Amino acid sequence: MLKVLKFGGTSVGNLERIQNVANIIKKIRDEGHDVIAVVSAMSGETNKLIEYAEYFSDTPNRSEMDMLLSSGERVTSALLSIALNEQGYKATSMSGREAGITTDSYHTKARIEYIDTKAMKTAIKEGKTVIVAGFQGVSEEGRVTTLGRGGSDLTAVAIAGAIDADVCEIYTDVDGIYTTDPRIEPKAKKLDKISYDEMLELASLGAKVLQNRSVEMAKKLNVNLVSRSSFTPEVEGTLITKEENIMEKPVVSGIALDRNQIRVGMYGVSDRPGIAASIFTSLADENINVDMIVQTVGVDGKADLDFTIPTTDFESCKKVMEKFKDDTRNIDYNDSICKVSIVGVGMKSHTGVASKAFSTLAQENINLRIISTSEIKISMVIEEKYAELAVRALHEVYNLDK
Amino acid sequence: MLKVLKFGGTSVGNLERIQNVANIIKKIRDEGHDVIAVVSAMSGETNKLIEYAEYFSDTPNRSEMDMLLSSGERVTSALLSIALNEQGYKATSMSGREAGITTDSYHTKARIEYIDTKAMKTAIKEGKTVIVAGFQGVSEEGRVTTLGRGGSDLTAVAIAGAIDADVCEIYTDVDGIYTTDPRIEPKAKKLDKISYDEMLELASLGAKVLQNRSVEMAKKLNVNLVSRSSFTPEVEGTLITKEENIMEKPVVSGIALDRNQIRVGMYGVSDRPGIAASIFTSLADENINVDMIVQTVGVDGKADLDFTIPTTDFESCKKVMEKFKDDTRNIDYNDSICKVSIVGVGMKSHTGVASKAFSTLAQENINLRIISTSEIKISMVIEEKYAELAVRALHEVYNLDK
Repeated sequence: MLKVLKFGGTSVGNLERIQNVANIIKKIRDEGHDVIAVVSAMSGETNKLIEYAEYFSDTPNRSEMDMLLSSGERVTSALLSIALNEQGYKATSMSGREAGITTDSYHTKARIEYIDTKAMKTAIKEGKTVIVAGFQGVSEEGRVTTLGRGGSDLTAVAIAGAIDADVCEIYTDVDGIYTTDPRIEPKAKKLDKISYDEMLELASLGAKVLQNRSVEMAKKLNVNLVSRSSFTPEVEGTLITKEENIMEKPVVSGIALDRNQIRVGMYGVSDRPGIAASIFTSLADENINVDMIVQTVGVDGKADLDFTIPTTDFESCKKVMEKFKDDTRNIDYNDSICKVSIVGVGMKSHTGVASKAFSTLAQENINLRIISTSEIKISMVIEEKYAELAVRALHEVYNLDK
Repeated sequence: MLKVLKFGGTSVGNLERIQNVANIIKKIRDEGHDVIAVVSAMSGETNKLIEYAEYFSDTPNRSEMDMLLSSGERVTSALLSIALNEQGYKATSMSGREAGITTDSYHTKARIEYIDTKAMKTAIKEGKTVIVAGFQGVSEEGRVTTLGRGGSDLTAVAIAGAIDADVCEIYTDVDGIYTTDPRIEPKAKKLDKISYDEMLELASLGAKVLQNRSVEMAKKLNVNLVSRSSFTPEVEGTLITKEENIMEKPVVSGIALDRNQIRVGMYGVSDRPGIAASIFTSLADENINVDMIVQTVGVDGKADLDFTIPTTDFESCKKVMEKFKDDTRNIDYNDSICKVSIVGVGMKSHTGVASKAFSTLAQENINLRIISTSEIKISMVIEEKYAELAVRALHEVYNLDK
């Protein structure tokens, strides 16, 4: 098999851990597999470099930031290659450029446009493990670029897709995807398999193991992703794959909790045409990620609007709302709420999933402030103080601890 | 003018110092000059990376060492470019590869083969200051290489030669070349000008401001070098140039002292043919830098050999000597000696320089153990305890404090 492995900053956080990663790779090589390993910078390195740049400028030149930030992954890739070569496992590091990764020129947030896999294929044919510096590529103009947050995951998935690898294993300090956060519900179980769409819903709802950009790319390129831990490599991890590859589709796969939401209520919104569109366009223009919109129209034609935004967008949202204060009777913000979500591909073919959720929370006297549903997800906004209670009750009622 | 400036590790040792370098460049730009700045890694960074590599291997893969070590200069070049751009001085960093520096494939000690100056010239035409990551290039195979010790100086000199710059200024923490070490003789004077050959003799004799490889390259490419300090940029520094450019040629330019020498004495060397050649070939094979050889032949045909070696080569020299112990009556080693040298292009046309040195030292009751002379240099091995006394006496007798 050809395996693409990705080791994040914590997994290569110090020299002992880089040695540990070398040991993981050696074991996989001994099993007869070919390996391309994508590595992040040692944890803390990228932040240190950002602080250096901020000493000189609040808005550092973005092309120079890429020159600066791309150095951390180069260091890790060289060290891991040295560790492997020392133990008789032929290896070669490659910068993003050497690995053939061409991106657009949008520095610090570049997108991968094309991967020329020739150099990697040649090295593999020569029996080498290829160690790619993640998070980076090169623009058409020949300048180094970086891919933004989660960039090393993207590098790994894109390479796996381009070179048609059998699997792309993402190593972090978490050994897979759980039915819910084990810190809230100790009975949470690790999932063996989960579909891309379920993973996307879980991730966007606060499960931070995999970045959505990577899962989306894995789905698009049909790459089998595995989430597993470099600290317990003997544990199998969770496979994220096509829905068709999952034989037994559970009705509910997991319960997600997102505490970083604020509910915005706009009451008595005037009935001039297009006002709602105007509000949401203004929010979108500020890159505010609006979710869970509910609109109720009264007999007077005036509407009440309820929606949630991420806590981080609170200040910019308030500025936008200022423009509409003459169009509404009252605007209020509530940050003591949270969003609990039930995710599962099986919902598509099962009825009664939502009503079971509503009655379970009702039994616990938890009021639902907003509800929204999609094909594979039911999200509910509740008071934050009920967060853990709601998660545990739902985890139990859908038998996720079994 | 087009100026190539080189800032060493101490000059860019922390963020404040990088800001200081930016200020030096701004001033030169304000004076209307074009600037290519070559930078080293922040002091300590390269050693840190070497220690990292040594954690994994005593003999780390040399190509990977280059991937590793080249990252430090990239960081400095990006930071300096950010600092300049922030203050409205357009700048762009360039890796060795981007600056067009092609080397051979002798990793960790590569030699520059060719510089394609196109990218640098384009950037300068666009009004930008070019900041080149020193110490590195790219091999024909497309792998990053590094140039070994003093590599950033070489980068600067080679660029200055290739792009026909008016001057190449090497900034360190020392403000120029002195008539002798001011820590020994406080009356030492900074030289305004000195020839390449004098500089080579002074450097090889222990004045560590400029690496010989760089001075040799400057001589070959006819690059005007200036040694000056980034901590006192208002001080002019010392120009190292062609002998023809120096109008008033002093008889003696400086006195150099080298304490790191050991005198090897081989007594009663047998008179079999080629024995001396065999000894020195064996030493050369071990890369031992033999200097100041004196041979005296007795009436019995047996010879006494005296020569000096650097202290660092002592162990390997002893191993070589082991092979010849049957050919000699006695071998001894003396490490309490030092080498004092008088350097000056004016010696070529002046007589009596050597005799003045000998009589000066004789007046101080200092015995000369070995003497060797070249066109522009007189070196004398003396007991180490007389080192300072000898330097000060010679400094005075040649009027170097005037």
